[in-house]
Amino acid sequence: MGAVPAVKAVVFDVFGTLVDWRGSVFAGLSAFGERRGMAADWLALTDAWRGAYKPAMDAVRRGEREFASLDVLHGEALVALGPRFGVAFSEADVVELVGLWHRLAPWPDSVAGILALKRGVVVASLSNGHVALQVNLAKFCGFAWDMIFGSDIFGHFKPDAEVYLGACRFLGLAPGEVMLAAAHNDDLLAARRLGLRTAFVRRPMEYGAPDARAEPAEDWDFVVDSVPGLAGRLLI
Amino acid sequence: MGAVPAVKAVVFDVFGTLVDWRGSVFAGLSAFGERRGMAADWLALTDAWRGAYKPAMDAVRRGEREFASLDVLHGEALVALGPRFGVAFSEADVVELVGLWHRLAPWPDSVAGILALKRGVVVASLSNGHVALQVNLAKFCGFAWDMIFGSDIFGHFKPDAEVYLGACRFLGLAPGEVMLAAAHNDDLLAARRLGLRTAFVRRPMEYGAPDARAEPAEDWDFVVDSVPGLAGRLLI
Repeated sequence: MGAVPAVKAVVFDVFGTLVDWRGSVFAGLSAFGERRGMAADWLALTDAWRGAYKPAMDAVRRGEREFASLDVLHGEALVALGPRFGVAFSEADVVELVGLWHRLAPWPDSVAGILALKRGVVVASLSNGHVALQVNLAKFCGFAWDMIFGSDIFGHFKPDAEVYLGACRFLGLAPGEVMLAAAHNDDLLAARRLGLRTAFVRRPMEYGAPDARAEPAEDWDFVVDSVPGLAGRLLI
Repeated sequence: MGAVPAVKAVVFDVFGTLVDWRGSVFAGLSAFGERRGMAADWLALTDAWRGAYKPAMDAVRRGEREFASLDVLHGEALVALGPRFGVAFSEADVVELVGLWHRLAPWPDSVAGILALKRGVVVASLSNGHVALQVNLAKFCGFAWDMIFGSDIFGHFKPDAEVYLGACRFLGLAPGEVMLAAAHNDDLLAARRLGLRTAFVRRPMEYGAPDARAEPAEDWDFVVDSVPGLAGRLLI
């Protein structure tokens, strides 16, 4: 805790930390069902879809398959989940619904917080989303990034070291000059082990209701309730 | 010529197209000389320094050396050029002066033009500068990029195909949906051969006075006098 004067860049996890993926994907699936006259438990499908995310990335991370973008992984997962929820998605449906992950609503403070931080440090995304998804998402949300780091730049997903250290290298900074801001303990743990600074951003509504995942599991350098809150701590 | 409705992204050359590298580096070298009480033909050194740029990159492009960032290439060139201009640069001098290329003044219309284009298309840099240089330059100038593509992302310099096609791939776009905006015919020629659209931006003062290099050598899709001029043509 305390002053962290050496931080020159803050890199951000995006899904959950800056955007409400659950509320946005649920709204998009519900609207899709309404238009098509299809009934399903869209909230449960949202959670199952997100739940398929980590195993799919882990298969890439373990080298069991080539690197593939989240669009590909999201598409495969949706097709696989359809029958369990009593819905069959056409190829066009899958393309349309995979696009929901390019248009997720920001948490109310995210845009202002990034702008505030940008006055004092480099602000960049460090997401498992690929560049195209993140460019679309940043335009949709209004994130004023100095740089977007996508998984396809590295050919790796977090928590692989290549992602965190690659971002530091591209920024020309030592790991100790870079802070990861994330709502997830596992992401921060990987970053800390590589020498990055850490900021835990509480997002109690990520999964719809506060639970243990929204609480810090370690003594992160900062624990904050919002991105402007992080700016207030960091830019002294 | 005429409407180019399919363009979804404009990628920009930076040195010369968006920033006045010659005026800025000359001003920086002159100020350095003043502070140190060192006299030299700083303008000639500026031109010689820039002149060393293409041969240095070409050595990388031909595989004669590993990829190295412009900071490295700029530093080596400055050390090599010193004696010819009667000046010896210390290591600290070199680090300081190489940093001039991270703080180049934009042409007066560049910032507004990027903002105008950003309302209708994706705007990204596509420069031989590396990510760190370009992040610094964008912050210094106020370029509101949606994405920065640096040579270190590709491990290649323009006019290698990997750079142009890599940017298209990261954006998830076909080459025909991407337009390169540049003040240089050779850059545009490489892009056109790969299927990208082309916009020639006249920058008659890049080399200090109008010359033939500032005129279009081909029938580029657009020929404009400014970045807002490109926005006016593209966003109909």
